[in-house]
Amino acid sequence: MKLEDKIRSIPDFPKEGILFRDVTTLFKDPDAFHYLIDLFVTTLQGEHIDVVVGPESRGFILGTALAYALHAGFVPLRKPGKLPCEVVSASYDLEYGTDSLEMHKDAIKPGQKVVFVDDLIATGGTAEAGCRIIEELGGEVVSVMFGIELEGLDGKDKLKKYNVFSAMKMPDHT
Amino acid sequence: MKLEDKIRSIPDFPKEGILFRDVTTLFKDPDAFHYLIDLFVTTLQGEHIDVVVGPESRGFILGTALAYALHAGFVPLRKPGKLPCEVVSASYDLEYGTDSLEMHKDAIKPGQKVVFVDDLIATGGTAEAGCRIIEELGGEVVSVMFGIELEGLDGKDKLKKYNVFSAMKMPDHT
Repeated sequence: MKLEDKIRSIPDFPKEGILFRDVTTLFKDPDAFHYLIDLFVTTLQGEHIDVVVGPESRGFILGTALAYALHAGFVPLRKPGKLPCEVVSASYDLEYGTDSLEMHKDAIKPGQKVVFVDDLIATGGTAEAGCRIIEELGGEVVSVMFGIELEGLDGKDKLKKYNVFSAMKMPDHT
Repeated sequence: MKLEDKIRSIPDFPKEGILFRDVTTLFKDPDAFHYLIDLFVTTLQGEHIDVVVGPESRGFILGTALAYALHAGFVPLRKPGKLPCEVVSASYDLEYGTDSLEMHKDAIKPGQKVVFVDDLIATGGTAEAGCRIIEELGGEVVSVMFGIELEGLDGKDKLKKYNVFSAMKMPDHT
């Protein structure tokens, strides 16, 4: 299956010059959605995974399906103020300013094997911050997985110490 | 398995008198997370499901895992302005004011069999708005499923015309 054909591309969204990659057209297609999750599972080659981590909110979509497929737990990385108990947080740079993500302090136990998953990698800031939190809690980042890698943004440069897998590689502009 | 034991309850969060039900402790537990998803699957009794719909953002967590388990597609209901193509939207009442959800207009085809899933039902406004959108697009709401039903808020009264299933029933106050 050519997964790229299931992605809808929208020129000049959310602003001129950006080619937006809409993953909802892949998620609504049962065969494509399963093919992508099963591709992640196969790539992990039977390695035991305790926890899958996904960032709010599109990271929940691939993350929880992958957690189910691997019989792992799912841990959300959330935007500030959403989690009710004690958290650890990490900031990352945006084009303008910074943003941050939070995880419950007791979400990962030292030594647990963890996969970080998101629908898309652009500059890599979200994933790098997420992996920093996983490691701060003592988790081992076994793999960092994406549906789409936007080419030309060098997001993978921030993740050099990890085992990175992208199911699709696509340019971010027309 | 007693799923209720996997829920962490936090008194007076986000404000006094509210007993917040934290589902993250269930999601991070592989056996409990799978047990819950498989309970949804069993409850559907082999009925063919085309699409699972979940609202942003915690509805994505159970929704996508269930979509994977059923070999269905997943369609997100998102907060306004997040989806890049033409949408249908529905408003619902909050304690103060209103909120709304959006879905891509082409996300569901007429006649498709749909399950709406969320982690929790409180007043039922989100679920009712979600089902209204599904039906506006011609989908058939086969079931409306929740992890937790908060008792005493009568949320199910808004969903009388649907087949509603809650895996757990818990009070919303101490």
